[in-house]
Amino acid sequence: MCSFQLARRRALLQSFAAPCAVPNSTMNQLWKRCFTAIPAAASKLAGLDPTKLTVTKTSTPKELTAAKNLVFGKTFTDHMLSIEWTAADGWHAPQIVPYQNLSLDPSACVFHYAFECFEGMKAYKDNNGQVRLFRPNKNMARLNKSSSRIALPTFDGDALTKLIGELVKLDSRFIPDARGYSLYLRPTMIGTQKTLGVGPPGSALLFVIASPVGPYYPTGFKAISLEATNYAVRAWPGGVGDKKLGANYAPCVLPQLEAASRGFQQNLWLFGEEEYITEVGTMNLFVAMKNKETGQKELVTAPLDGTILEGVTRDSVLALARERLVPKGWAVAERKVRMAELAEAAQQGRLIEVFGAGTAAIVSPVRKISYKGQLVDCGLRENEEAGEIALQMKNWIEGIQYGDEEHPWSYVL
Amino acid sequence: MCSFQLARRRALLQSFAAPCAVPNSTMNQLWKRCFTAIPAAASKLAGLDPTKLTVTKTSTPKELTAAKNLVFGKTFTDHMLSIEWTAADGWHAPQIVPYQNLSLDPSACVFHYAFECFEGMKAYKDNNGQVRLFRPNKNMARLNKSSSRIALPTFDGDALTKLIGELVKLDSRFIPDARGYSLYLRPTMIGTQKTLGVGPPGSALLFVIASPVGPYYPTGFKAISLEATNYAVRAWPGGVGDKKLGANYAPCVLPQLEAASRGFQQNLWLFGEEEYITEVGTMNLFVAMKNKETGQKELVTAPLDGTILEGVTRDSVLALARERLVPKGWAVAERKVRMAELAEAAQQGRLIEVFGAGTAAIVSPVRKISYKGQLVDCGLRENEEAGEIALQMKNWIEGIQYGDEEHPWSYVL
Repeated sequence: MCSFQLARRRALLQSFAAPCAVPNSTMNQLWKRCFTAIPAAASKLAGLDPTKLTVTKTSTPKELTAAKNLVFGKTFTDHMLSIEWTAADGWHAPQIVPYQNLSLDPSACVFHYAFECFEGMKAYKDNNGQVRLFRPNKNMARLNKSSSRIALPTFDGDALTKLIGELVKLDSRFIPDARGYSLYLRPTMIGTQKTLGVGPPGSALLFVIASPVGPYYPTGFKAISLEATNYAVRAWPGGVGDKKLGANYAPCVLPQLEAASRGFQQNLWLFGEEEYITEVGTMNLFVAMKNKETGQKELVTAPLDGTILEGVTRDSVLALARERLVPKGWAVAERKVRMAELAEAAQQGRLIEVFGAGTAAIVSPVRKISYKGQLVDCGLRENEEAGEIALQMKNWIEGIQYGDEEHPWSYVL
Repeated sequence: MCSFQLARRRALLQSFAAPCAVPNSTMNQLWKRCFTAIPAAASKLAGLDPTKLTVTKTSTPKELTAAKNLVFGKTFTDHMLSIEWTAADGWHAPQIVPYQNLSLDPSACVFHYAFECFEGMKAYKDNNGQVRLFRPNKNMARLNKSSSRIALPTFDGDALTKLIGELVKLDSRFIPDARGYSLYLRPTMIGTQKTLGVGPPGSALLFVIASPVGPYYPTGFKAISLEATNYAVRAWPGGVGDKKLGANYAPCVLPQLEAASRGFQQNLWLFGEEEYITEVGTMNLFVAMKNKETGQKELVTAPLDGTILEGVTRDSVLALARERLVPKGWAVAERKVRMAELAEAAQQGRLIEVFGAGTAAIVSPVRKISYKGQLVDCGLRENEEAGEIALQMKNWIEGIQYGDEEHPWSYVL
């Protein structure tokens, strides 16, 4: 085993005092202690170094797609960022190269054992033409958590943010300078080792591609409907549902097709006999309702218990709600909500609104949820496509993303 | 949505009478009804057609690696089988081409959402120089189950077996003709669609690569030790742990490194508060013990409840045990066994032997299992590396694989 892997393993093992044999009740706590991100600093091998960046510009620049014809994740910019890692040398010199195919041995471990993780983030053009990222440090931290969970290398988040900035600046002509438009960025890490043996990859590739995207709701909000899903299970305690791994996505597509065949855009993943509301697969879920006992208005979302993705938008909605809604009389809570509790609130007229939260749409209002053969009405009037809180959140977050409001979450390139 | 996908969806939906809203107790049954393999015949698009095969031979044949230097999954033969699929046209003409890199767009969905599944099977050279496969129909059926679960296309299993046969015959010089040696075959299917949108892939690649391998235990059996693992959970009811998806593998590597750091070769994945024994990640597990009440000798393995892989070797061990051990007074059972039950049997001297079963080693005897800080002794004497049943199973199965015993499981190419 190479010295880098040994160093990572040693760092991992420092958190173990004794073999992991514990009652199930403390499994989650133990898990958190066992599997935290390992700082790359633990290694003496080369770290990710932006000063070593080389840039090879394309000789065949693409024509821009008309803004109105942009489809999410279909067209890409002229260039990509590409950084190789090997267990022997650490991170190689970063390269910006023309957007191009990856050439990989058919035995590369990414094809067989899903050694792959990714991030979703966006670059925005503000009114002064400056390009901004939104909370990139959160994406970098999460990518490190994801990669270390599947024995892929970690990296210096600030260094990768800088390198992503170089790619975005080089390809900034692809960012339409209209509100709602942005450049979707997809940092991805894959294991490239050529072997069918199952073990920690000895080589990896970190690449970033960029795709110009239009507003999620080009003609204004359009509320979606969800199918509460219990026959398939997205994530579980002690699993990897809180990491942004490829492994969490392919298995959700068939249930999504099932839901679609019955007229529902997405699955609302329930968990356990209690049928706790977890998340929507590509979004976290927020519920605004009045407390059954006190009538207190509450904005509630599932807690980070290991079964839901630690959404950056989720975190932003929570922070803004605590800062700006609590003074207006709202309570904000991260707690488990049973689907039956939500259905009861709807029946009793206590459900105010429900919305998803994610990078693609910021917020996505929900009209109804199919549950046990019933349709739970989520509080929107018939002629209404978004509730007040969802609308407010979208405006607040978009204002920060596009630099209308100066805020530490906005990162000017 | 294309007609092929519509056809698949219609076939899927035939099994639904009503929305899936049921008590959790029947979730597993419902799951099985919802997610069975969809026969490719449901489509009017081109099926997999071996008569369309084209063969391009390499102009630079590789030198053979000395048999004793073979490492599992590291060296590959001269050629590979490669078959493209598109939602518009179905299966394209199969090609045997020189072993070569895959060239894929960096947005290909296999890199982001783990649209990937595979099989592991072997070709053996018998005493007459004939090449044989072992129960290839089981691998074909399982690959179809895996691919349809993640919205990848299905195919005619007999057609793929024939095509694999052509590859194996072309590269048969790579199969060492000594007992214990074989050609490991890796059929793999990946989603290749160029989009970051999460949905059913509109294009896929089915490829087969082949790697000559030596005996798993070149100098005779070497018993392994396992760490009973409860802090990480491999699979869950309603999940995909019974399919051979890439998604099931990467998340198991870190716990494997943890176990290795404490001197254990593999994890024994426990499930739930009852700590049921499930599988070893790359093998199923068999326990031979005397019944607590009756003293009856029993060979027991976990049932196919959706959380363990449906191993071909598992099925073979069960069938041979029912045919050849039951007449000798053994009972054979697929039932849930708690780790505590196994530990108790060991303590009371009722544990006869424990072994893993999988394609790589056929059987893999277990010396001890770490559980709650104790070492459970699995019944081997100190100078013994395999128990009687494991040894017997290896000889029976190997005898069929190499054609010493004429048996319907052996498929002569």
